[in-house]
Amino acid sequence: MGPYQVLQHIPGAEVVLCAVEAGELRDDAGLLRLQIERDLASVPSPDVVVIPGGPGKDVPAQPGSAMAAWLQAVHPTTTWTASVCTGALVLGAAGLLEGLTATTHWGSVDKLASFGATYTEQRVVIHDDVHIATAAGVSSGIDLALTLTGRLVGDDIAKAIQLAIEYDPQPPYDCGSASKAGPELVGLVRAVMG
Amino acid sequence: MGPYQVLQHIPGAEVVLCAVEAGELRDDAGLLRLQIERDLASVPSPDVVVIPGGPGKDVPAQPGSAMAAWLQAVHPTTTWTASVCTGALVLGAAGLLEGLTATTHWGSVDKLASFGATYTEQRVVIHDDVHIATAAGVSSGIDLALTLTGRLVGDDIAKAIQLAIEYDPQPPYDCGSASKAGPELVGLVRAVMG
Repeated sequence: MGPYQVLQHIPGAEVVLCAVEAGELRDDAGLLRLQIERDLASVPSPDVVVIPGGPGKDVPAQPGSAMAAWLQAVHPTTTWTASVCTGALVLGAAGLLEGLTATTHWGSVDKLASFGATYTEQRVVIHDDVHIATAAGVSSGIDLALTLTGRLVGDDIAKAIQLAIEYDPQPPYDCGSASKAGPELVGLVRAVMG
Repeated sequence: MGPYQVLQHIPGAEVVLCAVEAGELRDDAGLLRLQIERDLASVPSPDVVVIPGGPGKDVPAQPGSAMAAWLQAVHPTTTWTASVCTGALVLGAAGLLEGLTATTHWGSVDKLASFGATYTEQRVVIHDDVHIATAAGVSSGIDLALTLTGRLVGDDIAKAIQLAIEYDPQPPYDCGSASKAGPELVGLVRAVMG
């Protein structure tokens, strides 16, 4: 949702939600029911692709899948191919992260490595040369989208969007990354997340 | 979306989306089509109410409206009645902010004052005595929801949720509030937002 709220503010940008098949899509909590109007085949040449994350079991991170094939087909002509959270595993399954540094949700670091990527604990990892960007877990999508907006249309518009969404974060706790949280809290959350 | 992603992680919590009428609701950009299954009448005793924001013209901030009447009816028995962004104007229209300090999107400060509230440039404003919480524009919903979670179920669970959504924000620019952005950028965004 973060990238959607940022990117739809870019003047002239057309934002579309697409999936392997069009139709209703429920979020992981089952409460949000989204009507997806476009399938992958109907979006053959996107400028910017953002693959969102989700719980591990729902992530389409199978090499050879329809999603992987689509990413391989569209990536050569994108301006940016990007992911948030476990969406990095989808890029990985398409072979796009082979040999690159990348980030993902801290709970999916091992899986990321299985696709030949090297995890780095940064909020956003940008590779200008191969136009690939990955972001850390869930909430990092806002930071990713503002960063990409700056590169796409300049810092002035990106700053205006940051102000428009009043993005001046003040987290109540200093525990939002695995290293800041420490092993005890990480273990607890890992157990709950399964 | 921020509060939804946080609050649905509280163990045992039932999160429902409701509106004046059930049915499909589109977001301000027209791309997200949400199926709302509950109308206000079917949610007569919520523990926590979070009123989201939206563009000024779409905010149901009319005193005497069905929304205002529902808020007046449910607020006495809530644990928290809260708002994000221009959602504060909805609380205001229900008379809940009369004489209180409160916050909202920086572009709606004048409107907030018309409901007898005193704007204060804080990210989250909490009134424990009257169980009312207001948050600043759009992205502040995450900070609000984590703060309320801490009060509802304790800091440990709130910290675990902050880590689960990897909320360790790193905004690319330091311009996310009106005072940080300065008058020139504020004027630009105000002109675009209409």
